[in-house]
Amino acid sequence: MRDVPGAARPGGKKESDITESTPRTVRELGEFALIARMNAGRSPGPGVLLGPGDDAAVIAAPADRYVVSTDMLIQGRHFRLDWSGPRDIGAKAIAQNAADVVAMGAVPSAFVVALGCPGDTPVRFVDGLVEGMWAEARRAGASIAGGDVVSSPLLVLSVTAFGDPGRPPVLRSGASESDIVAVAGRLGHSAAGLELLTADADRERFADLVAAHRIPRPPYEAVRDLPDTTAVTSMTDVSDGLLADLAHLADASGVAIDVDAAAVADPALRPAADALGADPLTWALTGGEDHAFAATFRAGTPLPPGWRGIGRVRSGTGVFVDGDRWPGPLGWESFTGGE
Amino acid sequence: MRDVPGAARPGGKKESDITESTPRTVRELGEFALIARMNAGRSPGPGVLLGPGDDAAVIAAPADRYVVSTDMLIQGRHFRLDWSGPRDIGAKAIAQNAADVVAMGAVPSAFVVALGCPGDTPVRFVDGLVEGMWAEARRAGASIAGGDVVSSPLLVLSVTAFGDPGRPPVLRSGASESDIVAVAGRLGHSAAGLELLTADADRERFADLVAAHRIPRPPYEAVRDLPDTTAVTSMTDVSDGLLADLAHLADASGVAIDVDAAAVADPALRPAADALGADPLTWALTGGEDHAFAATFRAGTPLPPGWRGIGRVRSGTGVFVDGDRWPGPLGWESFTGGE
Repeated sequence: MRDVPGAARPGGKKESDITESTPRTVRELGEFALIARMNAGRSPGPGVLLGPGDDAAVIAAPADRYVVSTDMLIQGRHFRLDWSGPRDIGAKAIAQNAADVVAMGAVPSAFVVALGCPGDTPVRFVDGLVEGMWAEARRAGASIAGGDVVSSPLLVLSVTAFGDPGRPPVLRSGASESDIVAVAGRLGHSAAGLELLTADADRERFADLVAAHRIPRPPYEAVRDLPDTTAVTSMTDVSDGLLADLAHLADASGVAIDVDAAAVADPALRPAADALGADPLTWALTGGEDHAFAATFRAGTPLPPGWRGIGRVRSGTGVFVDGDRWPGPLGWESFTGGE
Repeated sequence: MRDVPGAARPGGKKESDITESTPRTVRELGEFALIARMNAGRSPGPGVLLGPGDDAAVIAAPADRYVVSTDMLIQGRHFRLDWSGPRDIGAKAIAQNAADVVAMGAVPSAFVVALGCPGDTPVRFVDGLVEGMWAEARRAGASIAGGDVVSSPLLVLSVTAFGDPGRPPVLRSGASESDIVAVAGRLGHSAAGLELLTADADRERFADLVAAHRIPRPPYEAVRDLPDTTAVTSMTDVSDGLLADLAHLADASGVAIDVDAAAVADPALRPAADALGADPLTWALTGGEDHAFAATFRAGTPLPPGWRGIGRVRSGTGVFVDGDRWPGPLGWESFTGGE
C-alpha cells in the first residue's frame, strides 16, 4: 500500500472470520466473495505498492527494469487431481515461474495468478491452492499481488512471475568455449516420481521422489547467494530436461556442451530405478520439472556453494554425453512430447 | 534488445520464409517451432529490453514502478469458436487486459501471453490469434514480450498486461461527494451483440453490434489524452457492466453513485432492442465487456474530449439509477452470473 494514497485493499478480515459456515463450492460463494476469501489475511510484500482490489496492481521496480515470465498449468496435463493435492499444485505453479525469473539472475518480487475452475470446485480446494501458492511465493522471497478468477470446465492455473535484476540479466547466450557447466539442485527426481505415480508402484517406499514430482524445489538460494565476483556466463532452469535445456543454451550461445555422465548420475535414484526396471541416468539427463539451475562459469572459477560441475563448453553445436550424441529424446516438448 | 548485451532473440526469419509447406496442426509443428513461428517477423517495442527466447523477458520501468493486470479467457465461456474468429479472440484477450492497465491512468508497455490449445489446432488458427493480439497490442501502443504455449483439451488464453504509470495511479477509491461521473466509450453494444449471436437473429443487419461483442474497442486515447490538469479522482474500466463496476468504485470510495438513465441511453441500441424485444437501457446499464472507461471528476471540471457526464457522486453507499435502486442484476459475475 506504500506510496499509493487512498488505496483500497481487501484483506482486513482474518481467515478465522470467514471460515464459519463456509459455502461448499465456488459457485455458491460467488466470484467476488471468492476473491475476497483468497486475499483475506494476506499481506503482499514490500515490493507490491498496490495489491488486489483495483483494476491492476502496482509493483516497484527499483532497478528501472523488471524480469517477467509466464507459465500455464492445465489439469490432466501438468498435474492430476488424483496425484496431487491443491497445496502441491499451487506450490508447483509458483515454483516453476519463480525458477524462470531466478534463472535470469533476478530476485523474485511478485506473482499474479489467473485461476480457471469449475463452479462445483470445493472452496476448500481453492483454499489449498492459495495456501500452496503463498507458501512457495514466500520461499522465493516474494508475494502474490493479484489475479483473476474465472469459470472453466477444467482447472487451469496461469502464473506470471516478476523479479528485480540484481546483476545484468544472465542469459542463455553467454556461454563460451571451455566454460565449466554446473548444476544446482536435483536432477531426475521429478521424472522418477512421475514414473512411480504412473506405475502406481512403491509410492510409500520412495515418498521423497513422489514428493519431488508433486512440488519441485528450485534451489533459489544457490543463485541468490552467487558472489558478485563469480563469472557466471549463462544460465537456465531445467524444466524440459537437462539435455534439452542445455541444448537450448548451447544453441543460443553458438557452442557445444559435453556432459559428464558420471557427474550427473545420482545414487539416490538407483533403488527406485531398480524397482521399476528404469534407467536412472536417463531420468537425470532428460527428466523435466525438477527446476534445478544449469549455468556456465568461466574456466578456472571456483564453483560457489550449492553448485557441482557436470561438463564443459566446447566449440561446435549441440549437446553431448561423454563425447557422444544422446540416442533418445533430450527432454519434454509440448504437443509432440508425451501426448 | 537494448541494454542487454549478447541477448539471443528469435525472429530473424521473415514470415514468408516459414509459411511454405506449413504443417497443418500445432502437434505436427511442435512446441518450439510453433513458438519460433509466433515470434517470426515480430519486433517488440522499445519498452521491451529482452523479448522472447530466454527464461524470461526484461521490460523497462522508467517510472520505478509498473502496473500489472492479468485475465484468463476460456473457450466456450469467454468466446465461442463458432461466433468469433482467431483474430477476434486474440484482439479481445489483449484489449480487456490493456483496458485494466489504462483504467489505472497508465500507458500500456507490454503483454505476455500464455496459450493452451489442443494438439490438433490448425497452425493457421494460431497465426490468426497472434495477428489479432499484435494488432490490438499496437493499437494500445505496446507489444508482446513473450509467453508460454502448452497442450490443453480446450483453448485457453491468459494475458498479463504491463503499463507505465504516467500520473499517480488513478484508483477506484478516490471518488468523493459531488464529483461528476463520466464515461468514455460505448456501453451495451457488446451485450447487444451477444444477444444477437445467442438468438441467431439479424446478425448482418446489426453487424456493428456483433463486431462490438467480438472485439471490444476500449477508447485508450480518451485516458491517454487526459490533460495533466484534469482532476480525475477515480477510474475503472467497464468489464462486468456499468452499474456493477460503478458499485465496486462506490464501495472502494465509500460513497454512493447516482446514474442519470437518460445520459446512458444510446439511440444506436434501439433498433436491435426492438428487433429482439429487449430493453436497450438494460444493455447499457448492465452489459459487460465493452471495456469503456468510467471515471469521476472533481465538480466543476470541464469534461475532456471523449468523455460524457452520466451521473453524480452522492453521500451514502451503493449505486442508483435516477435516484432508485436498479431492480435486476447489476452486471456479470463469474460462477453465479450466466452459468
